[in-house]
Amino acid sequence: MADEKGFTLWFTGLSGAGKTTISEIVERELRARGSRVEVLDGDVVRENLSKGLGFSKEDRDTNIRRIAFVADLLSRNGVPVITAAISPYREIRDEARETMGDRFIEVFVKASVEVCAERDVKGLYEKAFKGEIKEFTGVSDPYEPPLNPELTLDTEHDSAEEDAAKILSLLEERQLIPAGQPA
Amino acid sequence: MADEKGFTLWFTGLSGAGKTTISEIVERELRARGSRVEVLDGDVVRENLSKGLGFSKEDRDTNIRRIAFVADLLSRNGVPVITAAISPYREIRDEARETMGDRFIEVFVKASVEVCAERDVKGLYEKAFKGEIKEFTGVSDPYEPPLNPELTLDTEHDSAEEDAAKILSLLEERQLIPAGQPA
Repeated sequence: MADEKGFTLWFTGLSGAGKTTISEIVERELRARGSRVEVLDGDVVRENLSKGLGFSKEDRDTNIRRIAFVADLLSRNGVPVITAAISPYREIRDEARETMGDRFIEVFVKASVEVCAERDVKGLYEKAFKGEIKEFTGVSDPYEPPLNPELTLDTEHDSAEEDAAKILSLLEERQLIPAGQPA
Repeated sequence: MADEKGFTLWFTGLSGAGKTTISEIVERELRARGSRVEVLDGDVVRENLSKGLGFSKEDRDTNIRRIAFVADLLSRNGVPVITAAISPYREIRDEARETMGDRFIEVFVKASVEVCAERDVKGLYEKAFKGEIKEFTGVSDPYEPPLNPELTLDTEHDSAEEDAAKILSLLEERQLIPAGQPA
């Protein structure tokens, strides 16, 4: 796509809040509209950029800074990016915001620990509650919700499709993507 | 620039062979022609993607794999990339080649250890010869030259400007960049 505008949809939220599910719908829709997009999912990044890092504050910060470094490289060259890591610390997200300026769109994928634990997509919360996983965000490690995100998605009440639609509307409003065709 | 073709100029060569110097000239010239380009220099990458990694074979391989991951993300989205890390091991360079296919252009920046040591841009060879730096490529750590690089630059005999011109000619031949204006 010619002269596409780069941006970074920076998802943040607990494990199981819906980051990956929503990012997959947005990715599919953007591609259907002829847009490029790269998804830097938490797991993909841990495998390719951050193997060996743990979950201490320092290691989490390093991991998030690397994601921001790559998201900045892509988005400043016109590539839309979705990052879908927990990114629990406000300070490091704000650092990413500062690097990317108005290309940075923070999306708070919101759901309570209780609801995420009920979903328990990967069976992780049960282990975390039992103490079998240490430093688990929302259980034994902090999560700092954004104070002024560009978008808050209430995944306890909205479907993933509704949330994806909200993101696409925001991108259209900001003229970062072409308007969708009426169905 | 609309619909630019992505590629990765993968420089490989000893410390002091001329990778950074030549990459800077190519970068300047590409920008002058209205092309985008991102340079993933060895030092930049060590700072932003690989802090904490050392110079064992394993750590070097990890470092190079990360560079390849990012170069692939950029180049498959139409962004020209220059990587300028030593990348001493053939196997890992070939892995990057496999990932990027015909977007991968290996540029052997060739100079002997003796010539690099005479230049000794950063004063590193002296320390390496004295044993003050361990695992120094070409002195106390292996360097495996490419067997079939797309381009070999003889920086012992050519100037950095001449070498940069060779790279630009190759990119023009392959229609990866627009032809330059006659001076």
